[in-house]
Order: sequence, then C-alpha cells, then structure tokens
Amino acid sequence: MPQSPTYDDVQDAAARIAPYAHRTPVLRSRLIDERLGCEVVFKCENFQRMGAFKFRGAYHALSRFTPEQRRAGVVAYSSGNHAQAVALSARLLDIPATIVMPHDAPAAKVAATQGYGGQVVPYDRYTEDREEIGRALADARGLTLIPPYDHPWVIAGQGTAAKELFEEVGDLDALFVPLGGGGLLSGTALSTKALSPGCRLYGVEPESGDKGRRSVREGAVVHIDTPRTIADGAQTQHLGAWTFDIIRRDVTDFHTAGDAELVAAMRSFATFMKIVVEPTGCLGFAAARDLAGQLRGRRVGVIVSGGNIDLDRYASLLSSGPSA
Amino acid sequence: MPQSPTYDDVQDAAARIAPYAHRTPVLRSRLIDERLGCEVVFKCENFQRMGAFKFRGAYHALSRFTPEQRRAGVVAYSSGNHAQAVALSARLLDIPATIVMPHDAPAAKVAATQGYGGQVVPYDRYTEDREEIGRALADARGLTLIPPYDHPWVIAGQGTAAKELFEEVGDLDALFVPLGGGGLLSGTALSTKALSPGCRLYGVEPESGDKGRRSVREGAVVHIDTPRTIADGAQTQHLGAWTFDIIRRDVTDFHTAGDAELVAAMRSFATFMKIVVEPTGCLGFAAARDLAGQLRGRRVGVIVSGGNIDLDRYASLLSSGPSA
Repeated sequence: MPQSPTYDDVQDAAARIAPYAHRTPVLRSRLIDERLGCEVVFKCENFQRMGAFKFRGAYHALSRFTPEQRRAGVVAYSSGNHAQAVALSARLLDIPATIVMPHDAPAAKVAATQGYGGQVVPYDRYTEDREEIGRALADARGLTLIPPYDHPWVIAGQGTAAKELFEEVGDLDALFVPLGGGGLLSGTALSTKALSPGCRLYGVEPESGDKGRRSVREGAVVHIDTPRTIADGAQTQHLGAWTFDIIRRDVTDFHTAGDAELVAAMRSFATFMKIVVEPTGCLGFAAARDLAGQLRGRRVGVIVSGGNIDLDRYASLLSSGPSA
Repeated sequence: MPQSPTYDDVQDAAARIAPYAHRTPVLRSRLIDERLGCEVVFKCENFQRMGAFKFRGAYHALSRFTPEQRRAGVVAYSSGNHAQAVALSARLLDIPATIVMPHDAPAAKVAATQGYGGQVVPYDRYTEDREEIGRALADARGLTLIPPYDHPWVIAGQGTAAKELFEEVGDLDALFVPLGGGGLLSGTALSTKALSPGCRLYGVEPESGDKGRRSVREGAVVHIDTPRTIADGAQTQHLGAWTFDIIRRDVTDFHTAGDAELVAAMRSFATFMKIVVEPTGCLGFAAARDLAGQLRGRRVGVIVSGGNIDLDRYASLLSSGPSA
C-alpha cells in the first residue's frame, strides 16, 4: 500500500510528466488588480493538455503502472475531465482505457474521451454508485482502477501545478483552489507547504455542497447528496481518505460560491483576460472576488482548473449573467 | 514628412514599447494541428494590453510626440480598438486624448475608451467621414491626428508583433494576417521580409469588402462602401497611401472570409484553445482553415489581432455557429 504523498512525490511526478504536460501560463490582468485592490496571478490549467489539470495526476499515475498493468489496461470513473485525462494518458502510454462516465456528462467531454480512444461505460449519477461500477469492471477484467482524486499518485501529480506557480511567481499571501474530491487541493497543499509555507490556502466549494468544510469541522469524511451546481467538476459527494488527511492538516480555510458568482467570474475571465473557463474552474476566482475586501494590497493566487465546456452551454451561461 | 517605414523602424518601435506592451504568448493546439494537417502557431494579440495589437502602433506613435504635441493632445478616429489604444497610450504618456468613434461601435469599446480617460466624439459611420471630423478637430484645437493605420509610426509599431513571433518560432512557410486598413499587414510585411523572407504572407479580408486584393490588382487604392461584416475592425473603405505601397510590394496574396467562417473559427478558438477572439481577430485562422488542403505539412503562422467584443454579442455569435 502506498504512503501518503509528500512534496518529494510531487517533485517525482513533475519529472515524469514534464515531457508530456504543458507548463501552463500564469496570467494577470491590470484591470482585475485595480478592481480587486490586490495583485492576482492566475495559474491557467485551462491551457493544460485536454483542457484541465487532471492530465497531471492521470499521466503520473499511469506512468507508474507495471508492464502487466499496462497490458491489462486501466479503468476510471469520472464526471468528465478525469475521463479525458486517463484516456489521453493511456493513449500516450499505449494502455487500453475503460471509462465510467455519468449519462448526463457534457457531450463535449464524452466525445473527447472517445476521441482519445477510451471505451465509455455510462451510469446514472443520481441513482448508481460509480465507484462500485468501476471496481466491478476492474475485478471482472483485471484492470487497474485509477480513481479521480483519492490516490497518492494522482494527488502528487495534481500538486505539480502549484509547484510551477510558486516557482514562477514566488511567495503568495493567499491561494484559492477549486475543491471537488480534493485531489487538486491536497496536491496543492503539499507544494504550498514546501514552497510558500506562509501562504493561506483556501478550498473553494459549490454553495450547494460544502462537504470539505463540513468534513474538517466534524473531523471525519462527510458524505452529502450529489450537489446541484453548474460546477459539474465539483459535484462530488465526499472527500477521499487520502485527500481528507492532507486537507485537514494543511488547508487554512474554506469558501463557497453560488452559480451566479461562478457566472460573474466566468464573464470576468472572458472580458478582462480573454479566456474560456468552465464553471468549476471559476470557483477560485469567485472566492477571491468575494473576499477582496480582506485581501487589499496582498499577492493572491488563483488556480483556474479547466476550460472544458460545451460551447452552447458556455454561450448560454455568459448571456445569463450581469455585466462584468 | 516621414519616410516609408523599414524594419529598422520596427526595431526602434520594439525598443520604445517594450516597457509597456506585453510580449504576447504564441499558442498552439495539437488538435487543431491534427485537423488541419499542418503545424499552426498563433500569435495571440488578444492578450495584448487593452486586448488588441493596436496598442503597439498607438503607443509607438505617441511616444514620438514633441513636448508641444504632448501638451496640446492627440485626436484619433477609430472603429474601436485604435480608440482604446490611443486612450490608454495617452494616459500612460500623460497626453490629453480626443477620440472620434462610430455611434454604433461596440459598447464595450466605447466604455473602455472612456475608462482610459479618452473624450469620445461620436459620428455616423454610414453617412459621415471620420477622417474629416478628425482633421477638423485637429485644426480647431491644435491636436495631433494619429490615424488608425496610415502612418509610418503606427505601421512600424504594428510590425513588432510579427517580429516577436518570428524571434520565438523561427521561419514559417505562410503567415495569415487580418486586413482592414493595412496597418497590421504592412508592419507584418516589414518584419516578415527581414526575418523569414521565404514566408508567404497573406492579407485576409471580409468577403464583403476585399478592397486590398482589388487595390493591388488595379495598382491603385480602391475605395469601397463600408462593408457589412461581423468583423467590425475590418469595416474599412480603403487602404492608406503608406500601407498600400508596402502591401503591394511585400504581400504574397489575399484571401477572404465570410461571417459563417469567422464564427466557425471563433468556436474553434474557444473549444480547442480556450481563448476569446473578436470576429476581426478570426480572419487569419478562417483563411488558414480554408486553405488547409494546400498547407499540409507546412509551418503556418496566424496573427490573432484582438479579443474585444461585447459578451452578449460573443455569446450570441457562439450559439449561431456549427459545432467546432
């Protein structure tokens, strides 16, 4: 059984993914700085391969398969980006991939997963348990299951985004990170503690599903109903055992964002930065906007987790919001 | 009277704007490369200050004002981005700015121009002559007129984008550039001839207004009616005297794009590259998509000229197009 990951594992992951992952840009906007009254740096994982940070953890995990595991193949369950990440990583490593995806996942994500050569198995996210389906497939076919967040190799891989951010911009006063199952947040925590130990680290959840905050408050992993939110990448019912341990130890605080705040952040990204960000990717910026009053004059980081969204849905969300 | 600009002037302009302009990113997409069958590099001026390449030419021109000119102020006429560019440059150089803008210019561009401190004077682009209005204001108030494209300093400034592109990616086989009045295209021609002399250089115009192609064919500047196109930055009636001389000498060929092709390019930018591009900024990519059959295996450059567009209009255009 692997150990809880450390910053050493993040460094190993960085070396493994370097030839295949993008070193994504860190963007800034003078107009956003003026409006918020602080200096904000955005680590833009919407420019990562397959459009989200998930490639980091998936490629890292698959790169550690034994020859036997590679031959048999990988199985993964995912609300979207992890599916594409595993499918693309598997193609790069010549590993067969089976992906369990919700029947109502965004069409763009299903199509992209199939485009990378992944075999898609649908399930109903409101009535079925994707973990059970994934484990059953793994057992029946001898596949290795790579979960979307609760795995030391996945966590270490996701930590490489924050590693790059701190290496590029130096210390930060605060860092805002989208929180679904906690893979990105716990990996980010490892890099933050190593590279900018004074930085306050925030996990940002949908208003309708703050299982992270509640889990830390209650001292145990809290399970909730699938939250209804436009942030489909954060529609998770619970943290994992691995991610909870790190989050409980290293995360400073939590914040939430409602759908209207996510749309407002999405519009600001398009207006001031000319970038397309999916709703889940807007969580961090939505929180920073909300807390701007406390951040005056500070150096603030935001992880933009991804940009994969059906264009028609994107257009409809953009037109639904207030002026940026 | 100034001389026709040369690559030396582009180099001077680059030094002058370096402390204030962004060195914009060159982006690529593996999926776009696969679809087009060639290697495409995008010089992303939508990430330039005020959201478009126009900042380069405007700042360069204003930086050459005498102390007397600075005190009296600048006047400019523009369908949008040049207005913001002059207003922002004037603010940075502490010069009063008066901007003549069409009464139906995108609201976001008018608001941004005023936000930078520019005084906006509206006119009707279908019945009035903005050049006359600009000249009258210059005469009456002792202002220096900086036209949007037909000026050696403006042309030299716009050439700095292609200079950066070639310095970053080396030689190209073909380069596609949006063509309105020809400031960007003629400046790009100076850099292309100096840095990648074998590169085929294409000016790309709206289907409804190919005054560039016709001017070169007829050997003189052709005037047309204001073209009806979603590419509002290319709704120009004629090339300038300075831009025509360079374009006639150094541009390889012309291509056009209709509104539907611009929307398809805009959707591809959002889907595969996660960037927001205004319709005029889609001209180059639309042409490259159209000519992909002739470009197989080549290295192709595209200048993405800007990203300033009202979000509601952007959302409506995105939903009007076919799937990317």
